[in-house]
Amino acid sequence: MSEQFQPAVVLVSGGLDSATVAAIAAQRGFCIHALTLQYGQRHAIEIEAAKRVARAVGAANHIVQSIDLRAFGGSALTDDIEVPKSESVEEMAAGIPVTYVPARNTIFLSLALAYAEVVGAFDIFIGVNAVDYSGYPDCRPAFIEAFEKLATLATKAGAGGREMRIHAPLMTMSKADIIRAGSRIGVDYSMTHSCYDPAEGVLSCGRCDSCLLRLKGFADAGLTDPIPYKTRQPRR
Amino acid sequence: MSEQFQPAVVLVSGGLDSATVAAIAAQRGFCIHALTLQYGQRHAIEIEAAKRVARAVGAANHIVQSIDLRAFGGSALTDDIEVPKSESVEEMAAGIPVTYVPARNTIFLSLALAYAEVVGAFDIFIGVNAVDYSGYPDCRPAFIEAFEKLATLATKAGAGGREMRIHAPLMTMSKADIIRAGSRIGVDYSMTHSCYDPAEGVLSCGRCDSCLLRLKGFADAGLTDPIPYKTRQPRR
Repeated sequence: MSEQFQPAVVLVSGGLDSATVAAIAAQRGFCIHALTLQYGQRHAIEIEAAKRVARAVGAANHIVQSIDLRAFGGSALTDDIEVPKSESVEEMAAGIPVTYVPARNTIFLSLALAYAEVVGAFDIFIGVNAVDYSGYPDCRPAFIEAFEKLATLATKAGAGGREMRIHAPLMTMSKADIIRAGSRIGVDYSMTHSCYDPAEGVLSCGRCDSCLLRLKGFADAGLTDPIPYKTRQPRR
Repeated sequence: MSEQFQPAVVLVSGGLDSATVAAIAAQRGFCIHALTLQYGQRHAIEIEAAKRVARAVGAANHIVQSIDLRAFGGSALTDDIEVPKSESVEEMAAGIPVTYVPARNTIFLSLALAYAEVVGAFDIFIGVNAVDYSGYPDCRPAFIEAFEKLATLATKAGAGGREMRIHAPLMTMSKADIIRAGSRIGVDYSMTHSCYDPAEGVLSCGRCDSCLLRLKGFADAGLTDPIPYKTRQPRR
């Protein structure tokens, strides 16, 4: 008797959130097709982290798709605008951060949708989170629901009467919740990378929004962040 | 007194439809930011045609964005599957053609949305058509409406209470209607290119779905197609 595994496309950035999402998809029994988008961000170290994550969850395939979002400009992650730094989560600027990449999750989900159609998947997993990234318009539940409707309409799957499902299992979780959930199902966070501005391309800065949220998440979860930082060691 | 022109992003493929759409957007007074996606299709001749179209409508800017959709496979336009040929529109295969590119319009509109956000545009023009391409799920009015909702939710524009508008002015027009409308506003169709499988990269084959629809469109409009064909001259 052979078991049938449903394919699913999982967007894997190499960060903490998508590593957790990939582990959740694997635990639910999906055969994972990992997709990483390299969008002209400055740290190729993320791609290496994404490869480690895809390997760790036993992905059937891992596509790294390049797309030059620098052509459009408009973000500190793709332009030469300086990445903002602060000393704590409380000091982080309010509103939509300059690290916002225009239409990023729309583009990412569109490419995941193309991949899903080709491998015959009706399920796409993405690590968006509305709690810690409430400043990003494309991280809200309404956005994910709208994309799910669009995805069904846009594809042969929809034309054939099947619905596409966009899974965003971290949507309402705090960073600490995510780290706790991932740790319970065995995610090794030492393989992940979160910093927007790593020193010498390796050491995390500890002061960009992404580092601050990550460090606070580990601290709130009562766990130690296993990755090395430039400016300080993770607090408990 | 200086006039203010609203910016709009126009997806320009170099084909007949998008050349007509670009002219319509220009006629409505928009300042055009043209976007061409080079997605691993086999004929770079389309890019040259797109450049001519952008120039002809006086675009403020023209971005040619490369994206390797071959990484996902799944289409005769990006893979090595043979492009189907027939002798007439009536003989063309029914259903979703093998030249369908998975999630193509979703990806194209997503990238246009990123560009629109950066240039401050709330209007995106796309040359989709539900009449001659009824086999493509992402060429239907419901798809465009769903993307419009998504686009508003996905962006800073939406977060700021503005709505994004996706204009698909050709949606319900026949190919002959499109050619007539374009000819009335001065579109020079000799600068466009439609063939899925051009001989020596230049001469249109006259027998792929795209050539057949184009030739029939000119014939139905009572006009002569100004581009050169390999297998036959356009009929009147």
